[in-house]
Amino acid sequence: MITLSSDFGSPYPAAMKGVICQATDARIEDIAHDFPRQDVRAAAFWLTQTLPYFPPAVHCVVVDPGVGTDRNAIVVRAGEHALVGPDNGVLLPVARELAENGGRAADAFEVFTWAYDDPASSTFHGRDVFAPAAAAVHDTGVENIESRPETTLTDDYVALQFPDPSVDGDEATGEILVVDDFGNAVTNIPGDVLGDRFGGTVTVDGAEAPVRRAYAAVDPGQRLVTVGSHGNVELAVNRGRGDEAFGVSTGDAVTLSVH
Amino acid sequence: MITLSSDFGSPYPAAMKGVICQATDARIEDIAHDFPRQDVRAAAFWLTQTLPYFPPAVHCVVVDPGVGTDRNAIVVRAGEHALVGPDNGVLLPVARELAENGGRAADAFEVFTWAYDDPASSTFHGRDVFAPAAAAVHDTGVENIESRPETTLTDDYVALQFPDPSVDGDEATGEILVVDDFGNAVTNIPGDVLGDRFGGTVTVDGAEAPVRRAYAAVDPGQRLVTVGSHGNVELAVNRGRGDEAFGVSTGDAVTLSVH
Amino acid sequence: MITLSSDFGSPYPAAMKGVICQATDARIEDIAHDFPRQDVRAAAFWLTQTLPYFPPAVHCVVVDPGVGTDRNAIVVRAGEHALVGPDNGVLLPVARELAENGGRAADAFEVFTWAYDDPASSTFHGRDVFAPAAAAVHDTGVENIESRPETTLTDDYVALQFPDPSVDGDEATGEILVVDDFGNAVTNIPGDVLGDRFGGTVTVDGAEAPVRRAYAAVDPGQRLVTVGSHGNVELAVNRGRGDEAFGVSTGDAVTLSVH
Repeated sequence: MITLSSDFGSPYPAAMKGVICQATDARIEDIAHDFPRQDVRAAAFWLTQTLPYFPPAVHCVVVDPGVGTDRNAIVVRAGEHALVGPDNGVLLPVARELAENGGRAADAFEVFTWAYDDPASSTFHGRDVFAPAAAAVHDTGVENIESRPETTLTDDYVALQFPDPSVDGDEATGEILVVDDFGNAVTNIPGDVLGDRFGGTVTVDGAEAPVRRAYAAVDPGQRLVTVGSHGNVELAVNRGRGDEAFGVSTGDAVTLSVH
Repeated sequence: MITLSSDFGSPYPAAMKGVICQATDARIEDIAHDFPRQDVRAAAFWLTQTLPYFPPAVHCVVVDPGVGTDRNAIVVRAGEHALVGPDNGVLLPVARELAENGGRAADAFEVFTWAYDDPASSTFHGRDVFAPAAAAVHDTGVENIESRPETTLTDDYVALQFPDPSVDGDEATGEILVVDDFGNAVTNIPGDVLGDRFGGTVTVDGAEAPVRRAYAAVDPGQRLVTVGSHGNVELAVNRGRGDEAFGVSTGDAVTLSVH
Repeated sequence: MITLSSDFGSPYPAAMKGVICQATDARIEDIAHDFPRQDVRAAAFWLTQTLPYFPPAVHCVVVDPGVGTDRNAIVVRAGEHALVGPDNGVLLPVARELAENGGRAADAFEVFTWAYDDPASSTFHGRDVFAPAAAAVHDTGVENIESRPETTLTDDYVALQFPDPSVDGDEATGEILVVDDFGNAVTNIPGDVLGDRFGGTVTVDGAEAPVRRAYAAVDPGQRLVTVGSHGNVELAVNRGRGDEAFGVSTGDAVTLSVH
């Protein structure tokens, strides 16, 4: 199986599918093609939440602000999975997650550069570089990546880390990593800082808000603080948009007081 | 085959696909993941228009404003199809349609509750409850649903009905059920109230409008009343948005006079 | 394989998939369903950029402003591919591209009308006419199209041509064909008019702009003129929207001076 992820919108991903279908009979599944444009960190976050649910597969991930420049193309092996994409950090948090998810250490992955000839286009490496590479890795087998002449094992790659939240006694400071399509604002603050506050309240940037396990535990239109499916603190509104109600957007700092 | 429908937008449905791919080799087809948020009735309407065109399949449908509360998960068997989702009414109109479509009575379906342990997340039962249930039902077989230990046959479920239009002589009063992506406003008024008015006019909320079989039977930008592919009266504009031209949106009352 | 393309948005394409799944086991791949509404030329442009990357397939393409009127349904054979859709020109540029891509002359394709009975709906021929036709052509085989009783070979069809740019010495005048999801404005001016200007500048509608091979060759937020993956001149902004920065939208004239 080959999965496809990008910030390409539509219809560019279809050309990638065509290239892959010409090269292999592998099943193709789309993850998403509407990741926030050129936001490497947001894509990395969503993929850590999604790809570990898949069976072993080759995941082609193209969020690539540096397309056409001399950044490398890389292939990462993490357990029985492989990740293919530009060397800009987007693959690394996912590789750690896939490794841990497979019962290994978070750094139990290997990175290979993938050499390619000048492609047809300087603006569409998804079609001309990464889709063919994903098909080749798939048909070669994830366990045999190093047998491909294009690959060189490397420890020189871009190592994106999510920002660390700071937790100090009753107060945690973090930031909004992403806002999902519902308007839920996902922070980088781990859910366990909420401890036993479920049913009670916390203070978010100075204003009190109820802490609940489910959106529907407050009335429609009401704010709540919850732990999302990712395990992080999330600012939400039952049947509404948390980002608007809390006045936050991606990258904003947020302070939580469990007073 | 397993089909997926939700109001999740992107990328949450991909995690559901991953869970299903881990559990079964079933083919997966997306119906839509952009149903109006938490609008159980709109999703039910669209699914009655769509799922009967599919061959026998397990349809996983997650529009779930009550996620994380104690509403049941249910599985509905309608002919050779099964529907899996929350017990909030969304599955019922589709079950009736699938039953009738298979030549049975509209109430020839069976509802089972589906017991589940507390899932990993209180906010993402699509991934943690419904996707695994759909895979299990698929591999068990629709004809063997009751053999699953999670199931209990029940006649206690939420029974969503679409609102009935009122037809009185020359006048029909109904409401806008949904507005489609083209801006066509779909009413709950059956198309046959238009009788032989095709080529003529009717009055919509007091203003006259032509009745035509095809959008292109009026000039671009002109309003028309037609019968949509669903068989209901639809307010439209050729190459434009009917909702704006008629000043209506979902839930609005509309009165049609075939004077 | 059957591919699906339309301007239907969501969820109408799902009913087409259901119809196809009932008729055949063919693999289905979506190209795009968000082509600009009823913009036959934009759909034709995108499909010329996409379908040639696919292996031999039946491509069902429904951008159909004349649905329900007496325009024909047609099937076009271009090499080992077939195209199925309304006779409004949308299929022709793609047929030329598929023919040339297969090493033939641009006019080495054949057009057949496809006879159909009055379908269930006058507003949804995608579901009632084109999806069944695509499944039938697929299972009959592209090489046997004429064996279908519905088909009649014809040379009477709508022949959409993209507008020709005018190139006169140092100056080229063309128009914006489409704007992609990134905001890149794609012209109909061939990339080779830029000659050796890469690294230098050209004048676009009187204002100077740098010419570069990659978006990231200018600073974020800066304008550039480049050659897109389609081979045409493109007006872009690194990590921004070219259409806004250059003040253009689909159909606008644009003049390039390589002074």
